[in-house]
Amino acid sequence: MRIILDAMGSDSYPGPDVAGAVLAAREYGDEIVLVGDQAKIRAELAQHDVHGLPLSVKHASQIVEMGESPAQAIKARPDSSVVVGMDLVRSGEAEAFVSAGNTGAVLAGALLRLGRIKGIKRPGLTTPFPLPTGPIVLLDIGANVDCRPEYLYQFALMGSAYAERAMGKDRPRVAILSNGEEAGKGNALVKEAFHLLAESPLNFVGNVEPKELFAGQADVVVMDGFTGNILVKSAEAVSKMLIGMIGKEIKSGPVTTLGGLLAKPAFGRVRAQLDPFNVGGAVLLGVKGVVIIGHGRSTGVAIKNAIRQARLAVSGGLVPAIETGLAAFNPVTEAEES
Amino acid sequence: MRIILDAMGSDSYPGPDVAGAVLAAREYGDEIVLVGDQAKIRAELAQHDVHGLPLSVKHASQIVEMGESPAQAIKARPDSSVVVGMDLVRSGEAEAFVSAGNTGAVLAGALLRLGRIKGIKRPGLTTPFPLPTGPIVLLDIGANVDCRPEYLYQFALMGSAYAERAMGKDRPRVAILSNGEEAGKGNALVKEAFHLLAESPLNFVGNVEPKELFAGQADVVVMDGFTGNILVKSAEAVSKMLIGMIGKEIKSGPVTTLGGLLAKPAFGRVRAQLDPFNVGGAVLLGVKGVVIIGHGRSTGVAIKNAIRQARLAVSGGLVPAIETGLAAFNPVTEAEES
Repeated sequence: MRIILDAMGSDSYPGPDVAGAVLAAREYGDEIVLVGDQAKIRAELAQHDVHGLPLSVKHASQIVEMGESPAQAIKARPDSSVVVGMDLVRSGEAEAFVSAGNTGAVLAGALLRLGRIKGIKRPGLTTPFPLPTGPIVLLDIGANVDCRPEYLYQFALMGSAYAERAMGKDRPRVAILSNGEEAGKGNALVKEAFHLLAESPLNFVGNVEPKELFAGQADVVVMDGFTGNILVKSAEAVSKMLIGMIGKEIKSGPVTTLGGLLAKPAFGRVRAQLDPFNVGGAVLLGVKGVVIIGHGRSTGVAIKNAIRQARLAVSGGLVPAIETGLAAFNPVTEAEES
Repeated sequence: MRIILDAMGSDSYPGPDVAGAVLAAREYGDEIVLVGDQAKIRAELAQHDVHGLPLSVKHASQIVEMGESPAQAIKARPDSSVVVGMDLVRSGEAEAFVSAGNTGAVLAGALLRLGRIKGIKRPGLTTPFPLPTGPIVLLDIGANVDCRPEYLYQFALMGSAYAERAMGKDRPRVAILSNGEEAGKGNALVKEAFHLLAESPLNFVGNVEPKELFAGQADVVVMDGFTGNILVKSAEAVSKMLIGMIGKEIKSGPVTTLGGLLAKPAFGRVRAQLDPFNVGGAVLLGVKGVVIIGHGRSTGVAIKNAIRQARLAVSGGLVPAIETGLAAFNPVTEAEES
């Protein structure tokens, strides 16, 4: 297996990116191609013991900057690390593309250079979401802010394939996020998607409210990308707010301060359980290749975990599984607008 | 001022309801009319020292049960505490209706018996949402799962009137919840509502992401009722999950257990700061009267706080403020479907 790593992806590129590639090559043995500024990558590699590791470098002279219109940037920079890397996947020279770069740019690169799997209306952005009961799959988390019921069905199909093929879940429980558990609950989108999923061969368990979602009562939860984005960002904001409040109250007196010091390891373990870096990055489902998008603030270990995620998706046969699933049941008619 | 309290509202009615009425009558001196089963209310009142308190009882022989279709229940039970209480507000004998009963039933009662303020397309369900920086106003949190941009504008107008008149905020900062702060971000609904709000006389500060919302960077945040319901329930679920994880990790060893015991008062203070019972109940904005819906699990103090919320809304002139605001700027055309 050959995996492409965008060496110019993370906020502090190429340090964490190269470090992650070295860790992954050592641990997994897969071939990793570092794409980006050759001189900078080689200088960074010189900091590591890479003897005998299956690492190679592919030069790309350009970088997609933050703040550019993603589609324009991809078109204007044919020698950027994103475009060069995607083209290696497109041509079959590699199976997966991993980047901690700008999400919009990687999305645009994947759509424009790899293209959608035949029959997929809208690729979905997914996150393996860490919970105390183990990670679950949420999608869409922001690629499609306005959705049709068929998109939610396809998200469910793709998310289910991902949970099965890349996370090892058997017949993943698929649910729709809604404002009530009962079948008739939800907005118009949810109600229509419910019917499509009820008729599908997926292991559809109905609607879940946030309470059930955060209790891990489904393996895959689908929603429109607006709601998903708000959900994921709210979970992060509430956690941060609560930890901040607890920290402040603990520091407000000597006894609670002492208690906080003694209890500190417990807080550390909670943080570790919820750390998205341990799970990997976001996954773009529905394009012709495995695409993982790590966080800009990724460390070397986070990059390594994103590469691990890519190799599990490739070895599990994710893309063929989505193609097969679509062929078995696809509610999207040919006539429908693309 | 005369305030109606549905004595048959809370899950353990009429105990907490009557206790709350007694506390409120004693603290505020407003007249409170307890509506419901006369015998049960009087038996409960006998448990309290009510000498000289402005409390009265209005008999209502029926109760709206959970699980009934709300609109049908309201129509089928003209002598229920909800209908009898709403009718006292409708006839002008009282200014506000407070209940810890089923939200759907109170909504239906308010819509069918009080009716909408002229020009309001959809009343909005609001919660004063507790944050470390103080409560903010979120709406809609579930009454309208499918919204048009005009509804969001009217939510903003009503929420702003509520923050100003009932919470004492001067020129409340109004925002739209979105997946990005920039003006062009959001789904189709948010983008259109943005333009309406940008042209309005409200103190519109643009879009906020969950990060900004939970940091208290707006006083009023509007959203469709589906998203709002998911947001509020997610915040609750994440808090519960995190507290549970911390508790479990603290109890996993003797040192952290001791630390947890010492730090316990800090956790209690955090819980108190986020306790919705301290703020009051949900508020239905856009009907011809002040309507407060408390939590079914309300205690006497929670009921008292809901009554406090009602009296602040009445004395602040909330309903006239919404009428005046609508007259000044209403983007909803007459031609539009009701």
